[in-house]
Amino acid sequence: MQLVIGTKKWSTWSMRPWLVLKRAGIAFEEVLIELRQENDRTFEQIRPHSPSGLVPALKLDDGTVIVDSLAISEWAAEQVPALWPKDPVARALARAAAAEMHSGFASLRGECPMDLAAQPRDVELSEATHRNIRRIVELWTGMLDRFGGPFLAGEWSVADAFYTPVATRFRTYGVRLSDFGDDGRAGAYAARLLEQPEFLDWERAAQG
Amino acid sequence: MQLVIGTKKWSTWSMRPWLVLKRAGIAFEEVLIELRQENDRTFEQIRPHSPSGLVPALKLDDGTVIVDSLAISEWAAEQVPALWPKDPVARALARAAAAEMHSGFASLRGECPMDLAAQPRDVELSEATHRNIRRIVELWTGMLDRFGGPFLAGEWSVADAFYTPVATRFRTYGVRLSDFGDDGRAGAYAARLLEQPEFLDWERAAQG
Repeated sequence: MQLVIGTKKWSTWSMRPWLVLKRAGIAFEEVLIELRQENDRTFEQIRPHSPSGLVPALKLDDGTVIVDSLAISEWAAEQVPALWPKDPVARALARAAAAEMHSGFASLRGECPMDLAAQPRDVELSEATHRNIRRIVELWTGMLDRFGGPFLAGEWSVADAFYTPVATRFRTYGVRLSDFGDDGRAGAYAARLLEQPEFLDWERAAQG
Repeated sequence: MQLVIGTKKWSTWSMRPWLVLKRAGIAFEEVLIELRQENDRTFEQIRPHSPSGLVPALKLDDGTVIVDSLAISEWAAEQVPALWPKDPVARALARAAAAEMHSGFASLRGECPMDLAAQPRDVELSEATHRNIRRIVELWTGMLDRFGGPFLAGEWSVADAFYTPVATRFRTYGVRLSDFGDDGRAGAYAARLLEQPEFLDWERAAQG
């Protein structure tokens, strides 16, 4: 089985299912594609692996290719059900949190691209990004409150993989969550995501 | 149980889980919010129902709110498993198709917003949108070929709900799929989506 991923310092989409598979203990070989090459070179290098022309893509041993970070994570959760919470409502809310990240927060994504090799710095952010951050603080705090932590829906789940790149953005761009309604719990959660051994492995490779 | 949705002629996000719940025979009450109101009025009307400030949102009878079209669909599929294919690989590919739509095809979305009240017309589309359409034709054709139709993964699934708004865009904006590599099967599939009774009910309400 192969997971096709993009440049580790930039590819949030790749990081998420990579964290999920690692956490689940599912063995895979990594195929690394350099993103942001000139002309269509990146696309041309991805296409033989991934019909969507996008990373990540999971190539099963029978040749089946599963594209998309969330679909790969759902596939992994069928192998290792503990990747989602056991309780049906907690599972639904964890999926909602992951899916909201999957399709949303466009302003934060655009203004604060993940860059694990960048020095942290303070930046001026738009009102739309402020709104994204306030929503993330509210979502995190609400779930930590409801399920008691230490992760969004209690034990670590796919939802936490989806918010790990967000935690790196907050660190890189000097976002103080207390300015966005955090009473400290969201910040502690973000720090916790960045202390997980799987993330530290990814980060080491990204900065290497 | 309530499903909070936006204006039916425009809200692709709302249409998808609405189709899923209807197809599954899961009863719900509809809460309709008018989109694109001036200032923040739409947002203010959504917020009491949906913490993300976005539609759709599913309000369970115990007060739990599940946001996001894909998360609501996954919740529905836990009640009615036939909403995803039974075969694990088919299910993974159906999820990948839905998830690729959920996060992608930004150019097509931007240039061809769904408008069920608009007269069909031919429009000039960008190369990025051409690329989106070629990918959709390839994805549809590949899945119809692999699983034998009549829907993407054989029987109707959540993936088909996710591509129903796309089929309306192709119709509204005069997109001839044969210009994008279709041998006729993708076009027939798009037409099939627009003949489903649940879609026809939605469309009637959108135009009413």
